[in-house]
Amino acid sequence: MSRQEPMDLNQPDLRARAVAAARGDAPFDVLIMGGQLLDVVTGLIRDADIGLVGPLIASVHAPQSRKDAEETIDARGSIIAPGLIDTHMHVESSMVTPAEYAAAVLPRGVTTVVWDPHEFGNVHGLDGVRWAIEASRGLPLRVILLAPSCVPSAPGLEVAGADFGASTIAEMLRWPDIGGVAEVMNMRGVIDGDPRMTSIVNAGLASGKLVCGHARGLEGSDLNAFMAAGITSDHELTSAADLLQKLAAGLTIELRGSHDHLLREFVAALNGIGQLPSTVTLCTDDVFPDELYYCGGLDDVIRRLVSYGMKPEWALRAATFNAAQRLKRTDLGLVAAGRRADLVLFKDLVEFETRMVFANGRAVSRDGAMCQEAAALESTPLQHSVKLPVLAEDDFRVGSEGSRVRVATIDRPRFTQWGEAETTVENGFVVPPEGSAMIAVAHRHGKVDGITRVGFLTGWGEWRGAFCTTVSHDSHNLTVFGGNVTDMTIAANAVIAAGGGMAVVQDGEIKVLLPLPLSGLVTEAPLQETAATFRAIRNAMEQIVDWKPPYLVFKACFGATLACNVGPHQTDRGIADVVTGKVMESPVLEIL
Amino acid sequence: MSRQEPMDLNQPDLRARAVAAARGDAPFDVLIMGGQLLDVVTGLIRDADIGLVGPLIASVHAPQSRKDAEETIDARGSIIAPGLIDTHMHVESSMVTPAEYAAAVLPRGVTTVVWDPHEFGNVHGLDGVRWAIEASRGLPLRVILLAPSCVPSAPGLEVAGADFGASTIAEMLRWPDIGGVAEVMNMRGVIDGDPRMTSIVNAGLASGKLVCGHARGLEGSDLNAFMAAGITSDHELTSAADLLQKLAAGLTIELRGSHDHLLREFVAALNGIGQLPSTVTLCTDDVFPDELYYCGGLDDVIRRLVSYGMKPEWALRAATFNAAQRLKRTDLGLVAAGRRADLVLFKDLVEFETRMVFANGRAVSRDGAMCQEAAALESTPLQHSVKLPVLAEDDFRVGSEGSRVRVATIDRPRFTQWGEAETTVENGFVVPPEGSAMIAVAHRHGKVDGITRVGFLTGWGEWRGAFCTTVSHDSHNLTVFGGNVTDMTIAANAVIAAGGGMAVVQDGEIKVLLPLPLSGLVTEAPLQETAATFRAIRNAMEQIVDWKPPYLVFKACFGATLACNVGPHQTDRGIADVVTGKVMESPVLEIL
Repeated sequence: MSRQEPMDLNQPDLRARAVAAARGDAPFDVLIMGGQLLDVVTGLIRDADIGLVGPLIASVHAPQSRKDAEETIDARGSIIAPGLIDTHMHVESSMVTPAEYAAAVLPRGVTTVVWDPHEFGNVHGLDGVRWAIEASRGLPLRVILLAPSCVPSAPGLEVAGADFGASTIAEMLRWPDIGGVAEVMNMRGVIDGDPRMTSIVNAGLASGKLVCGHARGLEGSDLNAFMAAGITSDHELTSAADLLQKLAAGLTIELRGSHDHLLREFVAALNGIGQLPSTVTLCTDDVFPDELYYCGGLDDVIRRLVSYGMKPEWALRAATFNAAQRLKRTDLGLVAAGRRADLVLFKDLVEFETRMVFANGRAVSRDGAMCQEAAALESTPLQHSVKLPVLAEDDFRVGSEGSRVRVATIDRPRFTQWGEAETTVENGFVVPPEGSAMIAVAHRHGKVDGITRVGFLTGWGEWRGAFCTTVSHDSHNLTVFGGNVTDMTIAANAVIAAGGGMAVVQDGEIKVLLPLPLSGLVTEAPLQETAATFRAIRNAMEQIVDWKPPYLVFKACFGATLACNVGPHQTDRGIADVVTGKVMESPVLEIL
Repeated sequence: MSRQEPMDLNQPDLRARAVAAARGDAPFDVLIMGGQLLDVVTGLIRDADIGLVGPLIASVHAPQSRKDAEETIDARGSIIAPGLIDTHMHVESSMVTPAEYAAAVLPRGVTTVVWDPHEFGNVHGLDGVRWAIEASRGLPLRVILLAPSCVPSAPGLEVAGADFGASTIAEMLRWPDIGGVAEVMNMRGVIDGDPRMTSIVNAGLASGKLVCGHARGLEGSDLNAFMAAGITSDHELTSAADLLQKLAAGLTIELRGSHDHLLREFVAALNGIGQLPSTVTLCTDDVFPDELYYCGGLDDVIRRLVSYGMKPEWALRAATFNAAQRLKRTDLGLVAAGRRADLVLFKDLVEFETRMVFANGRAVSRDGAMCQEAAALESTPLQHSVKLPVLAEDDFRVGSEGSRVRVATIDRPRFTQWGEAETTVENGFVVPPEGSAMIAVAHRHGKVDGITRVGFLTGWGEWRGAFCTTVSHDSHNLTVFGGNVTDMTIAANAVIAAGGGMAVVQDGEIKVLLPLPLSGLVTEAPLQETAATFRAIRNAMEQIVDWKPPYLVFKACFGATLACNVGPHQTDRGIADVVTGKVMESPVLEIL
């Protein structure tokens, strides 16, 4: 569905039919009777019946005052709310197709998502974004797409499958399906007035569409400069104080479910204000397949917020009316005559299980099951994205002259720092320093050489095997972690043979392989199967590395190549440092 | 200023300058120091300094953390809020030019108004709307204009100076200065699917701009039908219950200051909800010149709401952030980096007197006085709008055969009802029934004949003189009330000679004349003078008619011709009844 979609509600025939039905001169198409309506604007609950005509809500009226309809829905015992709106997410993080994602979240009440197809964009460029648009069009889930703003996220430090300059962004912004510029992650570029980032942000402003942010850790003059550039939202909150500061600064908040440990303090902070600011919306950002399958999407964020003490009407207002306001979508976010019939019948406001979900006036789900399968798009354009030959063990070794060397290391996961170590050279290759693990990244998009660049990791745990992944932010080059080159080579070749994905290898044996043949990011397999395989990957990881919790292992591994973040990061070009702007092709600092 | 104006903030040079200043690499143009900022989103007040660059807010930062600026403003003791936004008003009701209106409200903190130039439209058609646009463009007050939707308000029952069908509305909606369709007053037309009104509403929907309502007394199926058509706002609230019902229905509320007696119950109802719904905005609608001069515009609505128990932060949120959301103007309504520098420095949150007002980053007012005069537009296109010859006393008499007749009367002001009376005929003219007064309306736009149509009023008080006005909703034909034809004739001719306006005549003497030579609605005289003359009209009215309070006299007189309302109404065509759709040219029912 496209951003221009509100026009579909403005067909004179449709409006005339809705007006006649509301007036009482024609039956409704659907009449939802006996439920309680949660008015997300006032927060009050009342008994109300709801008459639908086509995709429109035609009438919200006193119970039993009307009975004439083509179809009547028994909503007794249900609390009716507008369809949920996820204001920032990446379908790719769930490793399934948009159709499969839709089938997972629609029965949970999510009727709209704002998707930044950043990962497809990094791998396939405009073709990836186009595929995301096409794959979304046929879905009963409303997908508002954004133009990925930071492809690659660290130009010069890595090579992605594409390079989106301002003119490419402007081209995407002219497409009706594109609702704005996706999270601007290159914060320093914006703050320092870097011409590339500045012109991308300006293209967003000129389009009149959304310009979304990623304002991690920004405060004071940096935050002001970031906002003065025209960026208006953030989801990268790190604490309650950060939340309050950014609310006061005037940013729209996309309160994010993916960092659960922060949600309790966010709830407490908002409760402290005593009212829910209308600039608070909710988002998922990244949801792994097992989380999606077992816990859900935006519904899970709401459920957790409520369990942590947020009033249900606040959580729902944030996820509906506030989100619609943010998106300037006056057709969404409210159960009211004249608006779009996106409705959820919840069983309660604790577990938020659904009885029925309506999108565009049609029942899309009953008792948690889809009424009709979502149509998947042909995936050929995304196949064969791992353009690498079979690798050999020497590809995972660092060559060097001499017999003893000083090497740079990437110390500690997530918030990485530069380290140094001394080690020996044997047979022309550096022996990994005592207690270190290895990371190897090979360019896999065919843009430049696919030579693996290898680095040494300290403080990343002890690895008794290897993990290979083509999900590796943001360029999604082939990335391998491991304690020995044999397992690393096997893991890499298994993933290359699968056309992308993840593999865990131990003692020369492939423990688990999760093929992700679409862009090396996504599979066409059903979510249930993908969730199970991903769980198996998690479990296998616990066997090969002593580092917990496993959730953080993935966060750290998938982000180990995210060179736009401060600290050393291995990329397909070497070890990159965004602060100095330099890349070391080899970690060897000095031959001793 | 035009609706497309947000683009003026998106000049790359301007943004670059703002980012550099925010970052600390360049001075601000203006630095407002030492004030307290009311954050209308959270409702919290904090110490903050604000740096401006051109029309942008570049930075909102900790006190004293920056001192570099071209100009520094001492804001100590001030509470800083966003500029106030009046979401529904008619400049013409204040009987002064847009420039004079701007000069009256800007020093009071109103920086944006949404103007329905309905009265100019009724008199001059598209030329009137064009003049309103041109007259607004040069002002420091931001004026968002709407396309008048109901010109004439009762087609077939009256003749206005213009007739705006759907194609005319669509033409206006293509103009960038037009922000949407103004209050749709022909409610039954919408509800019953009348083709003219339906196509006007549909033109609004197709434009993607606002479609504003006037939902007086609507509830149940009527309200649902009105909203199903696509209308999204209302200001015609009649009680707290009506307010709560319309909030629950999902309408955006333009809470109106012009009906002061309702405001206390509105405040109580909102306090009862316990939070301010984000769909509550504030408006003035109609403000008479003396009220504007002595009390103010939207600031007066806020002051009264607060005095009646609304939290000041709620009133200001409604008048700023909520209004901006309604208007989809993300540049307005919040003091935040990257937004437009429309700011008010209030002395307190009780009297809401201002120290300074900024619009587009410029100081437009200090200590309640304009910094610079607002430029008025040449008014020739609005002159000579009263196209009538000198009238004679017989023009105010009802001719009839016979000697005794039964006549229809218009019984009771405001909510008029049909009445009947018997009376005599003398010299070919009907003698006004015992205890009645007269109303005469003459078409003055030159579209049809200008013959006066005369009716008899019962229950409208005892008139010892006459009152003539060309402000007479909605067609603004020449309208004369009186107890005798001599005074009525003198009053009418005085107004005709003045090119429009109002006159009160007693005992053959013109007591007060308020010339309104622009469209017969507005004067170029200063507000102070206009306010004084209007006060004199009020006082003179008290001498000629025993009917209080005088405020209601004007409401009743100006609305006596409003044929779209239920009940008999005198128009230029006769006595019209919107329910039957019939017009009686003469009140004579039967010759006895």
